[in-house]
Amino acid sequence: MSSDQAVQDIVTPLENTTIASASDQKAEQIVDPWNVQGAIVDGKQLGIDYDRLIESFGTRKIEEALLNRMETLTGRKPHVLLRRGVFFSHRELSSILDRYEQKKPFYLYTGRGPSSDNMHLGHMVPFLFCQYLQEVFGCPLVIQLTDDEKFLFKPNLKLEDCIRFSKQNAKDIIACGFNPEKTFIFSDLLHVGGPFYHNVVRISRCITYSQSKSTFGFIESDNVGKSHFVCIQAAPSFSNSFPHIFGTRSDIPCLIPCAIDQDPYFRLTRDVAHKLKYPKPALIHAKFFPALQGPGTKMSASVDTSAIFMTDTATQIKNKINRHAFSGGGATMELHKEHGGKPEEDIPFQYLSFFLDDDEEIEEIEKNYRAGTLSTGDLKKRCIEVLQKFVGDFQKRKEAITDEVVEKYMTPRSMNIDLSA
Amino acid sequence: MSSDQAVQDIVTPLENTTIASASDQKAEQIVDPWNVQGAIVDGKQLGIDYDRLIESFGTRKIEEALLNRMETLTGRKPHVLLRRGVFFSHRELSSILDRYEQKKPFYLYTGRGPSSDNMHLGHMVPFLFCQYLQEVFGCPLVIQLTDDEKFLFKPNLKLEDCIRFSKQNAKDIIACGFNPEKTFIFSDLLHVGGPFYHNVVRISRCITYSQSKSTFGFIESDNVGKSHFVCIQAAPSFSNSFPHIFGTRSDIPCLIPCAIDQDPYFRLTRDVAHKLKYPKPALIHAKFFPALQGPGTKMSASVDTSAIFMTDTATQIKNKINRHAFSGGGATMELHKEHGGKPEEDIPFQYLSFFLDDDEEIEEIEKNYRAGTLSTGDLKKRCIEVLQKFVGDFQKRKEAITDEVVEKYMTPRSMNIDLSA
Repeated sequence: MSSDQAVQDIVTPLENTTIASASDQKAEQIVDPWNVQGAIVDGKQLGIDYDRLIESFGTRKIEEALLNRMETLTGRKPHVLLRRGVFFSHRELSSILDRYEQKKPFYLYTGRGPSSDNMHLGHMVPFLFCQYLQEVFGCPLVIQLTDDEKFLFKPNLKLEDCIRFSKQNAKDIIACGFNPEKTFIFSDLLHVGGPFYHNVVRISRCITYSQSKSTFGFIESDNVGKSHFVCIQAAPSFSNSFPHIFGTRSDIPCLIPCAIDQDPYFRLTRDVAHKLKYPKPALIHAKFFPALQGPGTKMSASVDTSAIFMTDTATQIKNKINRHAFSGGGATMELHKEHGGKPEEDIPFQYLSFFLDDDEEIEEIEKNYRAGTLSTGDLKKRCIEVLQKFVGDFQKRKEAITDEVVEKYMTPRSMNIDLSA
Repeated sequence: MSSDQAVQDIVTPLENTTIASASDQKAEQIVDPWNVQGAIVDGKQLGIDYDRLIESFGTRKIEEALLNRMETLTGRKPHVLLRRGVFFSHRELSSILDRYEQKKPFYLYTGRGPSSDNMHLGHMVPFLFCQYLQEVFGCPLVIQLTDDEKFLFKPNLKLEDCIRFSKQNAKDIIACGFNPEKTFIFSDLLHVGGPFYHNVVRISRCITYSQSKSTFGFIESDNVGKSHFVCIQAAPSFSNSFPHIFGTRSDIPCLIPCAIDQDPYFRLTRDVAHKLKYPKPALIHAKFFPALQGPGTKMSASVDTSAIFMTDTATQIKNKINRHAFSGGGATMELHKEHGGKPEEDIPFQYLSFFLDDDEEIEEIEKNYRAGTLSTGDLKKRCIEVLQKFVGDFQKRKEAITDEVVEKYMTPRSMNIDLSA
């Protein structure tokens, strides 16, 4: 047993931390699956306090030693999103590394709520990371498209739209480069049934309305689908939900890479796992991908000027960064040269830290920006180049993803996994 | 539009009618999907007050005129369960008769919660009636086995047991003589998915937790599956849940024969139908089949001495009626001859009224019993004969129902329904 398995999950209610400020203004950090907003202190929107989230959610910080172990075990340099601390928190990641070391099977599970046909840069983060994990671990990956959730939570959407969004989003996801032999992408609306539904029902017998209410903040006038939905999102955590991959085996654990706001779902899932005698899912949590407007909230597909979409042209990317990206630089060129910039508040710098793989270059940029020797304009220019290349390469890969390719990824099928260990 | 379509559904909370009694004893009639208990007044267990149920549920009494219309339209004498008032209440039955008259399609929907592999006489009632309706109307019938509900509401059951009960119960149901070309029997655990699940999700967006709670009396420590389950039971009310039968048509209404305790599910369903622009299901409600112990509660599979099971031998039936059946006769033979018996309280008489088709004979029996000229022993003897024959014939029919026959009824398939009208 790895050391962190002993840590009990601390199930807290929604993370709504009130911070007393010097002025009269009350400031709350809000993090739940539907809202992400940093605290506001003296009228200023702060970034998300991630250490506080680790504390209140009861997760563990990813320490250097864990990264080193991962590197030693896999023989691969940790992914840029690990090196930059974007994936910063976890639950029982060590137990998955133990299984990798012992050549015992495990799988990856991640998901997406397809609320529109447009995916943006922030949506790419868990998928880029999963692609890396799948490559280094050589393990199966299941990707849940929660089109039923989007339908339940967005009263204006039609069911047919949600299914269409699922299929369109699947193309973007596939363009991240997943192994077609080991990746199963499914839409809830098209796939729920059979052994998957059996687990949904088993899970729903283990979660009280009271627990769902307090975990997600529902009220009695919310529809019954909402308080029940956690059972649908929990089901892929258990291997016997996928008999075409794992047969009847219910003892194969998964690792769930996801943004930290999804943790409440999996805290409940881990409780349920215990009751059902299934292994608890392990988790690895990402920070949010900030909106163009600043690090206090996350990029949103429903606010056009907050996001760089995967369909944006090179010119659109350039204009969005130049016009909308919040700068941590000095107010004037003179002030910038004198006092330097603040990379931790600077959106172009933040985006570079997600997408620029070269550690030396990013260190150089940070140092020079802080010193004021790198201008805001030049920083933005480099950010634009990197994003244009990332989005451009993505668009080329996506062109090759036909409906037939999507169909293949979305068909339940055997993956010839070695289940002997 | 038939006249009763205009009647608005009155959605009341659980039927828990407090009746003030002369003594200190409070007496409540309890009728919900999990409990049926007549009022207790001065320590005496009364029968169910069905007129009160019609009033508080807001349904309509089945009047002579409606029965006459049915007889004229179908050219068939109303079923014994209609003639004896066992099916006593309805919602919009006339609208289904209108469609029958206009040769427009409709279907029947009924169900069963398979909580054990034993079905008893009381369980037969809706199925016998459905068999008759299917025969006279020549329409499709869908039968839902709510094994998921049983799993959610009974913490000691295993999922595998619930599925096994479904398949075993299907044999008993098929033995009631349904048309194999027009009957689809399905287990929720085996069938939920696809267009059926789409309707479940659509329905769950229309029902608030508050509505489910107040309709069924849930508390916050109940599992989330319970408050959500109404969506699963509602789904078969809508024709597009069964694309193999009705294609994408969502405008074909159904008639639901069921015991009156199931009405709360369908009151909510009728509200939802309005929101989803689907036709409201029509209903026809049965009284409860009384326990051997008396007319104040219903026969229960979990109380062995309350029930005559469809697996009972002729001797077991004889012994159960003789030893356990509550008698409405005089306390002694002399008193019986002097004052007569009370058929309305007498369980053997009640059972005869469900199963003895001969109107003249039942009238004769009632008259003579009331007069005291028919003894309790002779009444019981006639009841035993009738039940032994009914159960014996059933058992012979059931012998022929192989697993392959069950498989056939439970396979989604086309029914070649004329959908032109």
